[in-house]
Amino acid sequence: MQAKPFRLAVKAVVFDSQKRCLLMRRSAVNRNFVGCWEWPGGKVDDGEDFTTALLREAREETSLEVEITGLAGAAEFETPKASVVLLCMEVHVIGGSMRLSEEHDAFEWVNPVDFHRYELLPGVQDFMIEYASRKGASRA
Amino acid sequence: MQAKPFRLAVKAVVFDSQKRCLLMRRSAVNRNFVGCWEWPGGKVDDGEDFTTALLREAREETSLEVEITGLAGAAEFETPKASVVLLCMEVHVIGGSMRLSEEHDAFEWVNPVDFHRYELLPGVQDFMIEYASRKGASRA
Repeated sequence: MQAKPFRLAVKAVVFDSQKRCLLMRRSAVNRNFVGCWEWPGGKVDDGEDFTTALLREAREETSLEVEITGLAGAAEFETPKASVVLLCMEVHVIGGSMRLSEEHDAFEWVNPVDFHRYELLPGVQDFMIEYASRKGASRA
Repeated sequence: MQAKPFRLAVKAVVFDSQKRCLLMRRSAVNRNFVGCWEWPGGKVDDGEDFTTALLREAREETSLEVEITGLAGAAEFETPKASVVLLCMEVHVIGGSMRLSEEHDAFEWVNPVDFHRYELLPGVQDFMIEYASRKGASRA
């Protein structure tokens, strides 16, 4: 049996100056998980550096200029064709103003302790909740 | 102030058929942390896929053929020139026999619950201990 390939994707965990975190709702143009909330991000293209991919995806999906500040963590989920490793990086906004691409139809700035109130993207949901719990603990 | 760049590196968390994990001791050819124990791995080259880098580093440092089985997790550490994000992938041995490169002068197959008995590489040590604790819990 040939194992599925592993692919790298990135997510931007975007914080504003009030330490609220950006969640975006998947629009009807997506093939699946329409209406689920997620962090902006996407696949790392062949030959592309992960930081380049992260800044590109953040710009495409939010129009915000962001700067990477550290690692949030990593998660893994399965698609029919690949095992996807999701590298999640904390970023903060340094410019631009929020504008949605067609991939999302809503966004909210959310205190991570409230993530559980949202229907989060399956496959990343467990990691997002665990991350929120870690962030909450580090603030306490 | 210009922030340091982020770089991607990979570590192979190699398991044998008895679920013991490979630790390797850094030899005197290294510029620092000589004598510390670590997982095999290294930097992802420009334009290189992270899985290619992982299999390359595992082959160079162990002579083992390995297959990636899943995500162990991610850690971050600082060097004077960069913030390094370390993507750690679980692999298992599918062929070859262990042979050290000049970068290491000893190796041991260790039950993760015993990681704390070793002088682990600073910067990755906390993640390795946390990982061992997670693995221990999932076996219990």
